[in-house]
Amino acid sequence: MENTCTDEFPLTMNSSEKEETVCVFGTGDLGRSLGFKMHQCGYSVVFGSRSPQMSSLLPSGAEVLSYSEAAQKSDIIIVAIHREHYYFLTELTKVLKGKILVDVSNNLKINQYPESNAEYLAQLLPGTHVVKAFNTISAWALQSGALDASRQVFVCGNDSKAKQRVMNIVRTLGLTPLDQGSLTAAKEIENYPLQLFPMWRFPLYLSAALCIFVFFYCVIRDVIYPYVYGKKNETFRLAISIPNRVFPSVALILLALVYLPGVLAAILQLYRGTKYRRFPAWLDHWMLCRKQLGLVALGFAFLHVLYTLVIPIRYFVRWRLKNMTLTQAMTNKDSPFSTSTAWRSDSYVALGILGFFLFVLLGITSLPSVSNTVNWREFRFVQSKLGYLTLILCTAHALVYGGQRFLSPSSYKWYLPPAHVLALIIPCTLLVIKFILIIPCIDKALTRIRQGWERSSKSASALNRKTDI
Amino acid sequence: MENTCTDEFPLTMNSSEKEETVCVFGTGDLGRSLGFKMHQCGYSVVFGSRSPQMSSLLPSGAEVLSYSEAAQKSDIIIVAIHREHYYFLTELTKVLKGKILVDVSNNLKINQYPESNAEYLAQLLPGTHVVKAFNTISAWALQSGALDASRQVFVCGNDSKAKQRVMNIVRTLGLTPLDQGSLTAAKEIENYPLQLFPMWRFPLYLSAALCIFVFFYCVIRDVIYPYVYGKKNETFRLAISIPNRVFPSVALILLALVYLPGVLAAILQLYRGTKYRRFPAWLDHWMLCRKQLGLVALGFAFLHVLYTLVIPIRYFVRWRLKNMTLTQAMTNKDSPFSTSTAWRSDSYVALGILGFFLFVLLGITSLPSVSNTVNWREFRFVQSKLGYLTLILCTAHALVYGGQRFLSPSSYKWYLPPAHVLALIIPCTLLVIKFILIIPCIDKALTRIRQGWERSSKSASALNRKTDI
Amino acid sequence: MENTCTDEFPLTMNSSEKEETVCVFGTGDLGRSLGFKMHQCGYSVVFGSRSPQMSSLLPSGAEVLSYSEAAQKSDIIIVAIHREHYYFLTELTKVLKGKILVDVSNNLKINQYPESNAEYLAQLLPGTHVVKAFNTISAWALQSGALDASRQVFVCGNDSKAKQRVMNIVRTLGLTPLDQGSLTAAKEIENYPLQLFPMWRFPLYLSAALCIFVFFYCVIRDVIYPYVYGKKNETFRLAISIPNRVFPSVALILLALVYLPGVLAAILQLYRGTKYRRFPAWLDHWMLCRKQLGLVALGFAFLHVLYTLVIPIRYFVRWRLKNMTLTQAMTNKDSPFSTSTAWRSDSYVALGILGFFLFVLLGITSLPSVSNTVNWREFRFVQSKLGYLTLILCTAHALVYGGQRFLSPSSYKWYLPPAHVLALIIPCTLLVIKFILIIPCIDKALTRIRQGWERSSKSASALNRKTDI
Repeated sequence: MENTCTDEFPLTMNSSEKEETVCVFGTGDLGRSLGFKMHQCGYSVVFGSRSPQMSSLLPSGAEVLSYSEAAQKSDIIIVAIHREHYYFLTELTKVLKGKILVDVSNNLKINQYPESNAEYLAQLLPGTHVVKAFNTISAWALQSGALDASRQVFVCGNDSKAKQRVMNIVRTLGLTPLDQGSLTAAKEIENYPLQLFPMWRFPLYLSAALCIFVFFYCVIRDVIYPYVYGKKNETFRLAISIPNRVFPSVALILLALVYLPGVLAAILQLYRGTKYRRFPAWLDHWMLCRKQLGLVALGFAFLHVLYTLVIPIRYFVRWRLKNMTLTQAMTNKDSPFSTSTAWRSDSYVALGILGFFLFVLLGITSLPSVSNTVNWREFRFVQSKLGYLTLILCTAHALVYGGQRFLSPSSYKWYLPPAHVLALIIPCTLLVIKFILIIPCIDKALTRIRQGWERSSKSASALNRKTDI
Repeated sequence: MENTCTDEFPLTMNSSEKEETVCVFGTGDLGRSLGFKMHQCGYSVVFGSRSPQMSSLLPSGAEVLSYSEAAQKSDIIIVAIHREHYYFLTELTKVLKGKILVDVSNNLKINQYPESNAEYLAQLLPGTHVVKAFNTISAWALQSGALDASRQVFVCGNDSKAKQRVMNIVRTLGLTPLDQGSLTAAKEIENYPLQLFPMWRFPLYLSAALCIFVFFYCVIRDVIYPYVYGKKNETFRLAISIPNRVFPSVALILLALVYLPGVLAAILQLYRGTKYRRFPAWLDHWMLCRKQLGLVALGFAFLHVLYTLVIPIRYFVRWRLKNMTLTQAMTNKDSPFSTSTAWRSDSYVALGILGFFLFVLLGITSLPSVSNTVNWREFRFVQSKLGYLTLILCTAHALVYGGQRFLSPSSYKWYLPPAHVLALIIPCTLLVIKFILIIPCIDKALTRIRQGWERSSKSASALNRKTDI
Repeated sequence: MENTCTDEFPLTMNSSEKEETVCVFGTGDLGRSLGFKMHQCGYSVVFGSRSPQMSSLLPSGAEVLSYSEAAQKSDIIIVAIHREHYYFLTELTKVLKGKILVDVSNNLKINQYPESNAEYLAQLLPGTHVVKAFNTISAWALQSGALDASRQVFVCGNDSKAKQRVMNIVRTLGLTPLDQGSLTAAKEIENYPLQLFPMWRFPLYLSAALCIFVFFYCVIRDVIYPYVYGKKNETFRLAISIPNRVFPSVALILLALVYLPGVLAAILQLYRGTKYRRFPAWLDHWMLCRKQLGLVALGFAFLHVLYTLVIPIRYFVRWRLKNMTLTQAMTNKDSPFSTSTAWRSDSYVALGILGFFLFVLLGITSLPSVSNTVNWREFRFVQSKLGYLTLILCTAHALVYGGQRFLSPSSYKWYLPPAHVLALIIPCTLLVIKFILIIPCIDKALTRIRQGWERSSKSASALNRKTDI
């Protein structure tokens, strides 16, 4: 059911039940939509406006009065006017004394003003209780009922009773209130709808940089080198062949970078001998965007799978196969079946498929609703154990694919190794370090440190900590 | 944890805590399941039945009394009997006075009766507080704990205290209550479990119609025409070749239809010079099912990808390639490598892959849990900017695929162009109009209109509106 | 917004508003993180510790006192110490009388002690109200704000007012409290974070067993038999060819096992003539893990699709095609186009694609967020009708693939049929039984039984039940 409340006015209402009256200052888009929605859900709504003539867009039966008249009819006033006009409200200080003002405003830029709109309003009208709410809800979503973007309404304010009343209104409208604390949280709430995927910036910039680097590396090896040495025009490789080297390399590197901070943190804890010292800020930030790094890596892996599966329908591949068959037919040269080549070919493809399958499983468990249904132990099992298994399979896939070519000199053009060799550096190093960390003596030391033991002389406080969870 | 409450009776219960008693009229499936579940969660449950002999299916320790005896034990009575037997309850008007009656009934057809069951019950027993709840929960789900379909319970009623008490019971059972307003919402609540994907009807009917049309169009071109002119039996094409022309065409047309209402709305606003006039009803309805249109388009695109990737394992394709190779071997004709064909082939495949990848991203952000974690600006960025990029890539994919064939006369059979040419009409028109709307002077005018400016003589009210959000 | 509360201390706080004070016993990881989080969200926090020296890891401005001093400052005390040290608290029985103790402990093994930690604490301190909460939240998640694993906090306790106060704290921290009933639920709550996918064990063990069986069956047929009879080394088939027989067989069998319990239940109800007798325990358990069986089957189907799509890029397949072409070129034998082979090849591929597409749709509707937005009728339509359609398409895919080979003697090696023939036994039997159950006379009888009719002599109680829902 998209619309949470009925359109009709309740006819069979119990007359002894008093409807709560809410006042809305302002008849712009958001003000009208909020008022309309609250009216639908059973509130009595009064609009306050500078020019209280009836507008044809207001819901039928809605009262429009002047600001001071409207303010007297209700305890709660939704202030749906722009910040530039807040000072008008200081004329109404007496009327608004003790009432709850709900600030629903948004700005156009992050940190546009020194203090948040809600705190500014609270400074102008110190006798009122200012509560910040509803600024993440769009007017169109309220009207149409299609609350696709978000049902979450961030609420903050200093007076907890005022906050509770506003949160009750939020729940009645069918939305989910989230208490963010006191009014100092208003700045963060006002910045929130202006953000654009903040946690994804570092992963996306990093992967763009890696893509560009590996792309030009491959262009040098696969397009410029053949042109310089053989006058061959291989520019058509730019469409599929070269992207199909770039994407898997970037995917493998990013997947390794997901697990690298954990290993670095373990090394740091072993080196310091305690878990009670903070990590460097860059390591903390890196650990916070591991999920986004992994999902970007999954995206590149998915592209690599698609680019690989279309190989047989490419004109270039068909022409080359046909050419090889014809050449063999004409020269009558025999090419016996090589079992080892069959093994190698099938193996690296199978390793790639299994690695991608586990990678997709990891991605599915990252979906918010799925990760909410698993407990912490299950989540860590999937992300950690299955995650390392995925990394191992993908690294093995690249290693077997490289195979003997890694050693043959013809792979090296201008002493540059193939791109996948570069991509294998970080994952292989990581897996070697992780393997060392798993060795029982080192693993025991690490587990002891993580359970609270400290390599220090404060044996008394070490004993103390072991009593606490 | 599937079962939210324990099976055992609380032994260490604080004796000063009074259990709340709930009465259940009726010992059918839903009545028994609700009673059992509430008993598990700490309520004391009393059943009322016309024949109060103990049934072996009632939970052990459950009391079964006559209706009037059971009603006196509790404030809240769950009326789990069929509508046809509501009139029995009028005998108990005195006993039920002032109590809360919870109507949990469902009908077999939408709008089976002129008024909802809950309103009928309220008319029969005017001294009670009727609350509608629990009709979306199935008995089996309550028993087994596998609440897969829905945890949401729609609640409506005229008396808000009664509603609050019922909503507390809902929360104690581990479900999520949604307040729908007064009792007039009961009709919509009773219709809700009888609906079958109402928002998907228009997209699915439209895509079925498009599929059938494009299918017969392709059959005429690819099966009937070769038979008429060459006596060739190409009927095997019905299995894969023709569906692989139908699905991409329908996917492209539907994707264009997702963005067309937005463009039409913009043209309408520019023409009228204001955003304060309502759109036509068909345009509003079209804008509401854009998400479903897009998801159906994604389904067809996914089928197209699968049908394309299996091309090399088809017997027909292998036979044709083998035949071409053999013919070339025997005639000794040389077929040099055509770089332009390689470019074109690789390009349209790469464009298709990138378009499909972005399309899948769009689909993932449509999942309810993912769209709940992004704010409005992020959601619009993905659906609008990435959406148009997807449309551009898919249109380019079809254009490059058509390529020179679009102009060569041999593509036209009986003056009918290939199917993909038909499919390109709407997307190309849409992209041209959107490009025109992006031109700075037109874009400025549109932005001004959307921020509230009106091309009218009411300059005073225009000024007024600019103060409001 | 990852952090739900602000970092700063509220400066513009209304002085008449009293902050609620919470006491935390213990300064270990979870104790400190909970205290820090509650401080962020506006609570005043006092720590109690055996050695109340300031630790550098406590939040700045946090008070650390002795247990008895800290306990006197607050009504609610979070007991963040290990179970082994609960007896220390008996010294404070007088101070703790009437207060709310929140037990947040976890054990290392399921059922490590005879009674739950919370009940043990309640026995030690009978004058207090013990509430179990927060044991599913990890300390690191609280600190970093990345509540990926779960926002759900299970709460249980005997005193409902104490529970309500703890649930309010949970909501203030931005988490979702779920009331599990009285303190006897504590054991289940303490076991919950130690579980590792309990509902998935049976499906995963069953599929592992099926995989191993079908794998060795195929190895005997495809590797050992050619070696025994032709000295051919076909071991390379172990990488892709044999898994691509194992995975589809297991997927088809598991998909059939999803719908088999429903059919067995229907047969049982028809046989007994009533729906009011409980099913056997194994059938109940089977019906509860149908969703997990289906998702495991989808995983195997996805692997089968990937293994099939890589067929044309395998060295073995390319070599075989090339060899066939060369042989045909040299022997000059003509191989005309066989329309029936083209039909069969295209048909089974198309059936497979359509079956997989519907299977993916089924999987998507199993996601928690998607299944929460559909009502019960829609969910049953998708899982039941579309589910059977998926099973029919996949069975047809296997049947057409087998085709004539099923009858030709060369398929039988050592009298063993191909693996897909074995896999077809259960689905075909199931579809035949389901078809019989759909015949109108049998379907009517079943519907009657499911609506409450009983084939017995208790006609009075049968009439009685028809009044109830």
